[in-house]
Amino acid sequence: MSSAAAPTAILRFQPVNDRVYNPKWYTMGVRASKRVGRSLTSIVNLNWKVYLHFLNWTRDALHMPEPELIEHAGFDSAIFLRIYILGLKIFIPLMFMGFIVLVPINATGDNLSTKDIGHIDIGLLSVTNVPAGSQRLWAHVTMAYVFAAWVCAMLYIEYKTVTLMRLNFHDAQDRRPDQFTVLVRNIPSDPDESRTLHVEHFFRVNHPDYYLSHQMVRNANALAKLVKKKESLQNWLTYYQNKLSRNPEVRPRTKIGFCGLRGRQVDAVDWYSTAVEKLSMEILKERERVMDDPKAVLPVAFVSFKGRWGAAVAAQTQQTKNPTVWFTDWAPEPSDVYWPNLAIPFVELTVRRLAMAIALFFLVFFFIIPISFVQSLASMDELSKKLPFLKPIVSLPFINSLIQGYLPGLALKLFLIFLPSILMLMSKIEGYTSLSSLERRAAGKYFIFLVVTVFFGSIFTGSAYEQLNSIIREAPASYPRLIGEGVGLKALFFITYIMVDGWAGVAAEVVRLKPLIIYHLKNTFLVKTDKDRDKAMDPGSIGLNESLPQLELYFLVGLVYSVIAPILVPFVTVFFAFAYLVYRHQIINVYVQEYESAGAFWPHIHGRIVACLIIQQISLAGLLATKQAKKCTPLLILLPILTITFHLYCKKRFEPAFRKYPLEEAMAKDTRERAMEPNLNVKSYLNDTYLPPALQLEEDDEESRLSGEKWSEGPPLVPTKRVSRASTPVASVTSETPIMLERVTY
Amino acid sequence: MSSAAAPTAILRFQPVNDRVYNPKWYTMGVRASKRVGRSLTSIVNLNWKVYLHFLNWTRDALHMPEPELIEHAGFDSAIFLRIYILGLKIFIPLMFMGFIVLVPINATGDNLSTKDIGHIDIGLLSVTNVPAGSQRLWAHVTMAYVFAAWVCAMLYIEYKTVTLMRLNFHDAQDRRPDQFTVLVRNIPSDPDESRTLHVEHFFRVNHPDYYLSHQMVRNANALAKLVKKKESLQNWLTYYQNKLSRNPEVRPRTKIGFCGLRGRQVDAVDWYSTAVEKLSMEILKERERVMDDPKAVLPVAFVSFKGRWGAAVAAQTQQTKNPTVWFTDWAPEPSDVYWPNLAIPFVELTVRRLAMAIALFFLVFFFIIPISFVQSLASMDELSKKLPFLKPIVSLPFINSLIQGYLPGLALKLFLIFLPSILMLMSKIEGYTSLSSLERRAAGKYFIFLVVTVFFGSIFTGSAYEQLNSIIREAPASYPRLIGEGVGLKALFFITYIMVDGWAGVAAEVVRLKPLIIYHLKNTFLVKTDKDRDKAMDPGSIGLNESLPQLELYFLVGLVYSVIAPILVPFVTVFFAFAYLVYRHQIINVYVQEYESAGAFWPHIHGRIVACLIIQQISLAGLLATKQAKKCTPLLILLPILTITFHLYCKKRFEPAFRKYPLEEAMAKDTRERAMEPNLNVKSYLNDTYLPPALQLEEDDEESRLSGEKWSEGPPLVPTKRVSRASTPVASVTSETPIMLERVTY
Repeated sequence: MSSAAAPTAILRFQPVNDRVYNPKWYTMGVRASKRVGRSLTSIVNLNWKVYLHFLNWTRDALHMPEPELIEHAGFDSAIFLRIYILGLKIFIPLMFMGFIVLVPINATGDNLSTKDIGHIDIGLLSVTNVPAGSQRLWAHVTMAYVFAAWVCAMLYIEYKTVTLMRLNFHDAQDRRPDQFTVLVRNIPSDPDESRTLHVEHFFRVNHPDYYLSHQMVRNANALAKLVKKKESLQNWLTYYQNKLSRNPEVRPRTKIGFCGLRGRQVDAVDWYSTAVEKLSMEILKERERVMDDPKAVLPVAFVSFKGRWGAAVAAQTQQTKNPTVWFTDWAPEPSDVYWPNLAIPFVELTVRRLAMAIALFFLVFFFIIPISFVQSLASMDELSKKLPFLKPIVSLPFINSLIQGYLPGLALKLFLIFLPSILMLMSKIEGYTSLSSLERRAAGKYFIFLVVTVFFGSIFTGSAYEQLNSIIREAPASYPRLIGEGVGLKALFFITYIMVDGWAGVAAEVVRLKPLIIYHLKNTFLVKTDKDRDKAMDPGSIGLNESLPQLELYFLVGLVYSVIAPILVPFVTVFFAFAYLVYRHQIINVYVQEYESAGAFWPHIHGRIVACLIIQQISLAGLLATKQAKKCTPLLILLPILTITFHLYCKKRFEPAFRKYPLEEAMAKDTRERAMEPNLNVKSYLNDTYLPPALQLEEDDEESRLSGEKWSEGPPLVPTKRVSRASTPVASVTSETPIMLERVTY
Repeated sequence: MSSAAAPTAILRFQPVNDRVYNPKWYTMGVRASKRVGRSLTSIVNLNWKVYLHFLNWTRDALHMPEPELIEHAGFDSAIFLRIYILGLKIFIPLMFMGFIVLVPINATGDNLSTKDIGHIDIGLLSVTNVPAGSQRLWAHVTMAYVFAAWVCAMLYIEYKTVTLMRLNFHDAQDRRPDQFTVLVRNIPSDPDESRTLHVEHFFRVNHPDYYLSHQMVRNANALAKLVKKKESLQNWLTYYQNKLSRNPEVRPRTKIGFCGLRGRQVDAVDWYSTAVEKLSMEILKERERVMDDPKAVLPVAFVSFKGRWGAAVAAQTQQTKNPTVWFTDWAPEPSDVYWPNLAIPFVELTVRRLAMAIALFFLVFFFIIPISFVQSLASMDELSKKLPFLKPIVSLPFINSLIQGYLPGLALKLFLIFLPSILMLMSKIEGYTSLSSLERRAAGKYFIFLVVTVFFGSIFTGSAYEQLNSIIREAPASYPRLIGEGVGLKALFFITYIMVDGWAGVAAEVVRLKPLIIYHLKNTFLVKTDKDRDKAMDPGSIGLNESLPQLELYFLVGLVYSVIAPILVPFVTVFFAFAYLVYRHQIINVYVQEYESAGAFWPHIHGRIVACLIIQQISLAGLLATKQAKKCTPLLILLPILTITFHLYCKKRFEPAFRKYPLEEAMAKDTRERAMEPNLNVKSYLNDTYLPPALQLEEDDEESRLSGEKWSEGPPLVPTKRVSRASTPVASVTSETPIMLERVTY
């Protein structure tokens, strides 16, 4: 810990790095850029006393109470930290129970003589040291039940707490547009009327008392691409302008071909300013097209209701005979919408998900094949054969050994670095429409990958593909035995893994090396104004798609070894404690939450921990089977069944709170709101909230007038009629208020 | 066919049997009992011409068009017949394709010489005759795709048709109480108010514009038992009274002990009339208790709404934070409610279902163990050891051989006869609240049993338990091969099975031997009046829990052999055609539908046929694997994946129509009804529809005044207030009508 903290402190206390280590405070407007002078003190911190307190941040991190944390960093972040606490709640008692009950039993087991094995200490403390058929194994079976009961109790309490917190959060929160809004997909086309009119008529007929307004989604994907391209060109322009201003004598030049490396040379500033200008015109035209072209209207709409009750009803019910048209679901929070996927036709979704399921299967079990292919390509001989001009270079001894030693590993490392992005891409192809669900889906895939390749891959020898092969060639009856045997031998490996990947990974999280480098690069080349510096600073977010599965892997390892080799549990406990500290600090000072899903990932994490528990039980049963514990092993069969029942119960009891909005809550909140603000105009409040970012972006620019007006008035095809109609229902809501109140209070 | 039809005709044309073979017409009031004289013609039909036309019923059976059939026999029955038509639609083309393409290819395969096998003909026409590694196997792979495509197309069309028919049926139907009513379970208790008041307040607050009224469910299970007991005593009383009236000299006597076999002798008529009287008093008391005791009120209520829209909303939404309280679902049709299960506490359900799942597993795989135990008990030596007084009897050679030969088989036969009842009992324990869902659950269990014991049990040798054992000891990679090998050898067995079980079973269905015997027994001993004769006549219903799985088994056998041994398909086709005829006749003339679920079992049958298709694909892949068809076997892996995708698509597309009531339909029907009958009082229409039968039964009796009044006024605890309140909403519905119409028609 402290070994990582010391160099970090040196980096963190430099004012020039402040935006890397405390970006959140800038984003929130609490800290502002000091004038970046060229004086030394504004870059390097010369106050030596500060360095002595380099561990103070741990105290600060623990300081903020949870409600304040929720307000400061968002509900998702606060709930994310609870996972670590849950880890501690699970593993600290397991550690004590393990050390008090199991370690003495194992240590006096006398199965292993010190000559038999290399790793004396660990082997002696694990179940491996208990002789086959010993009565001592009853202790392990009993403890498996005790541990399972403890873990389930903790999971239950935590699920209940999080569910209540989520409901309270929803309840205490201010009005949010997504509480009133439903996402309607696969709207059928009508030959007689435009789509927007069709939507309006449908909801006026079928939700007459509740329908308020709607906003059709327009396909702005092409526009979004152009905007992104313009941003990149703008960056280059700034870069060359900076270069020019630093050295006004030499006008910077660039080549117009691939990545500025090939082709004709031109004046860089002129070239890029023309390009940016041209693109701006294109963007303007494209935006106009999106706004006017009826073909740009997708069969998707955000439909808003007068109250939460009406929205809750529309989101939870089936609208028509054919359940795949007029498909309604809760609208994600505006910042949580993943716009590109709204354009995917509804019918494609089944096919896309099937394709991705197959792709995931091949990715998990056969990823090693392309990598070995790349590795073979990267070998010396191949390299010099394919690229003969490299021959003189690679034949140098130094280069040669570098390639021989690092290149093969590099292919695997690169794959693992890009894996989360690959999995995220796969989830995007599956067509989920909110960032939060995309992250959860990607996390689910990554968890499968980690369990198969890291956990089972370490237990069995050979690649995942070889495992798969041996699995289908072995009898199912021998699976638990195989797992059990493997698990028993690998305790030491996993201790090393926890230290190398877990502890060191968390320490690296504190250093934020990648953001540090990127920030300074951007700061040097792209920053002209303070606004630019704000842009260059990328606080990032927690990245649930990557961090959840890694966490879950530690739950898996900890649980599996809690009975088999309790010596491993303290390492996991330390990981959870240390990671809790670090992430609490990062969440307070660094990360800015991209969206607010109100803890929607909790069912995911709960389910995965239950899965880990079941893997533990199966592997323990397998290990005991190898110990010829004929009497107690059958007792373990009941345990997974009970655990699954527990999971199903929890799913039924708590999960709906994460998927549905109960009518009682909706009604209570509606009633309260009507009493507090009888003149509230929900329609004007909701106006414009569900706009694709590509159309919103332009609001800053001069040209935004056009689009802004169009959208604030509503879809262009129902111009005056719509306004007059809509005004009536709003009025009726307010006039109804006293009646509603009467109803509730009698 | 005709061999079974001839003796049947002799039985069916006797007037004395008319109530057995045409009970439905009596139930419907179309036919009435002729005066049962003692003349010969009223008992035996002496008109010999009738016997010549004994096959006429087949023509009559096909005569009734489907819409008329739906009206006459109910929607469920009409849909049930469509399964046979679906069987024909699937198997007739499969038969032709098989005979045109596969049979010639197989027959010229030259793998089997006529010496190799006993069953020359069948072996030569099946895939067994194609030599290993032959290019001819491509034909089988191609046909597997063609067949799968055909089956899926037929399934899709049928699912779509049935879904539309169901929605039209709902739409065309008259008002039905279940359209307005929602079953609310697990109502939490409130310390401040009674349950019924709590329900009313909850729905008035959370569904203010739609709530109409509610009826708490009272625990009348004890009452129902008493009523049943009284019925049985009444039967005995009638029996002895009949006996006395035939022979007034001798007063019949009975013993009061176990089954009238032991204990003191008493005068039978006096004894039973006292007993019946005593029980009547008890019933009266118990009914009063149920009506008055607040403890008899279960946390379950039928809540009715002013319109279908309100009910649809309440049924499809989550009411409170805790999804397990105030749990709402569609109310089953009144005659479909299974009252005893409404008393089961909601929390028990998970445990009960888990327990039954485990029980089913043991029943399927280990049922042979208790049966062999009984069989060993039933053997000669054991019998004479346990019951020594039987020794002289069982040592008689005739009795001896009878016991040796029949008793062991009898145990199995008895088990198989009682199996559907056992499975039904298990489903009842699971706690489903409607008869239709109970039948579906029991059918699902029976299907698993049949597939494992009959299908796989015939393919592999040995009992299901031995199969299970060999399954977990064999590698998964070898499963398809094992299945394939087994399937290839058993074509002849399944042809015999279809003829013995299928054809003969259907023929037995025509004879109705069991109802025939029971009717005549009852008619002789228990019938005094025409009303009694109506009671003695038991038309029965289709019994989906037994007939669906048997049907599905024929789909399985037919599909599996459609590619492997097309010679079997005609036998299955004949079964479907013959069974269609017979069941159409029975449905028109015999069965009386107990409830109307509007075809709710279609998703069940669709899913099972898809499962059969997947078993076919796996076994074909296995068989080809044994033929060393290395090139074409991998192609077959794609087929199950595509089939599962097809199933998931169908599930998403059609199943909601069987679970939910779309709001558009509800709104349309509400609006139409308001326009047609503006003065309709829904509340008075719904009155009393959801009463437990034990409380309804008494309406005939003199004592019914009390209960009848209490219930029609509504729950006793909200006496006057409730009526006045309820009248207001009803009035508001009618006053709203013009507004509603305006909304819809603009």
